[in-house]
Amino acid sequence: MKITIIGLGLIGGSLAIGLRESGFATELFGVEANVLNAARALELGLVDKIVDFTEGVTFADIVIVATPVNSLASLLPKVLNLIDNQIVMEVGSTKKMIVEAVKTHPQRANFIATHPMAGTEFSGPDAAIKGLFVGKACVLCDVEESSEVAHETAKALFLSLKMHLVYLDSDSHDVHTAYVSHISHISSFALALTVLEKERDENQIFELASGGFESTVRLAKSNPATWIPIFEQNRDNVLDVLDEHIAVLSQFRSLLIKRNFDDFRTMIDKANDIRRILK
Amino acid sequence: MKITIIGLGLIGGSLAIGLRESGFATELFGVEANVLNAARALELGLVDKIVDFTEGVTFADIVIVATPVNSLASLLPKVLNLIDNQIVMEVGSTKKMIVEAVKTHPQRANFIATHPMAGTEFSGPDAAIKGLFVGKACVLCDVEESSEVAHETAKALFLSLKMHLVYLDSDSHDVHTAYVSHISHISSFALALTVLEKERDENQIFELASGGFESTVRLAKSNPATWIPIFEQNRDNVLDVLDEHIAVLSQFRSLLIKRNFDDFRTMIDKANDIRRILK
Repeated sequence: MKITIIGLGLIGGSLAIGLRESGFATELFGVEANVLNAARALELGLVDKIVDFTEGVTFADIVIVATPVNSLASLLPKVLNLIDNQIVMEVGSTKKMIVEAVKTHPQRANFIATHPMAGTEFSGPDAAIKGLFVGKACVLCDVEESSEVAHETAKALFLSLKMHLVYLDSDSHDVHTAYVSHISHISSFALALTVLEKERDENQIFELASGGFESTVRLAKSNPATWIPIFEQNRDNVLDVLDEHIAVLSQFRSLLIKRNFDDFRTMIDKANDIRRILK
Repeated sequence: MKITIIGLGLIGGSLAIGLRESGFATELFGVEANVLNAARALELGLVDKIVDFTEGVTFADIVIVATPVNSLASLLPKVLNLIDNQIVMEVGSTKKMIVEAVKTHPQRANFIATHPMAGTEFSGPDAAIKGLFVGKACVLCDVEESSEVAHETAKALFLSLKMHLVYLDSDSHDVHTAYVSHISHISSFALALTVLEKERDENQIFELASGGFESTVRLAKSNPATWIPIFEQNRDNVLDVLDEHIAVLSQFRSLLIKRNFDDFRTMIDKANDIRRILK
């Protein structure tokens, strides 16, 4: 398949590596607005050629849009305006506002909304890595709005990356990701800020940071250019989860104040149930 | 050196492995109140012999107490009552209440309070691993209360494990660990509970959990038998940090409510400063 990837950052670049490796992509073109990133993507061999938007879309069998989610509502209709029989997919971390933006487009059936659930705290073409998607879930959203061929193409593409497929409507997708991804980022950002603030008085505080701390604040390195649009687009769900998370922390606080370590232990016992999920 | 380790869990067991490997320990005895853990420690070859408390203390050149922190205030004076020239160290995650408990003991100078800053979310003898301490910090607390020989012995022991030393008074230790360790655990427990609660309505929610989520909730698997005593003993500092952490989360919440994504971005930019600490 001839594939054009628009946006050659962590996700777009890692898709390029994976699709070339799996043999699913026979030719790979890239579209990248940032000239430095475009040059770097070429240097890294992520794509065969950097082309302009129109050439990229018209060249391909499949167009994958992997730009930050705030660009998708305006970009996707432009892609769909240009296509003939191409299949178009985006791989963003939010869905509702994005599918809304193409809802009435005459080429809607050639489009499929996807979310390969994988990433790291790094960004840009240098963050692209081999095997990023292996064994992870890929969500396909609102597939009944897509043509059979768009659906089958997306399936084949993500299965070639050794992902497994999960089907959700776009509303549910945005609720679920608020819980299992977006809140983790806010929690990490907040933890990092809490300790960085203390560092002003205690400049050696990080000397003691070990694996546990590193694990919980790793995501605080994440790029605001990626994450601000996600929080913007999924604001209502993220707010709900954040409220619940603050409520749980406040329960811990209240039990500490009252020195009620019996109920504190009961809460930890319940939290330990996460062992069922994370082996 | 003949070494007795009291408490053969994650930390005691990993110390046994490391001290045998480094050659620092020539003979290793273990004292373990839990008979199943005692048998398992022997089976795993963590120690040469399981002995009773009195034999363990009188046999050794160095006694390392690696039991949960709630046991130390009563256990350490009993150890010190039995010793002649032995050096005694404990390796707990809190310090103030522990050094307080031995403050006026006639053998105080033979005792040194230490905290090798390493661990995992697992516990018991089966959690003991090789290399746990390599490259990590070990805090020595209130060393001016310990004899020169106790200090030099502890230094040599932890340097043989390839740790680097950090000196803090016990009050500062407890403040620092509240920031770079204890709050991370509460945050993880709370995140796990937040999502587990949602799972009641959305039983497939964890299907989408990927690396980022796993990283932030990993510590929620941690054992309450270890952590309740830590939160109990360091309650005041943990409360302070938890208040600050909730305040930062509430700032994020308020910015989301107001859709003030400019200030939200400024906060993420500041949080990204953690890249300076975590490479």
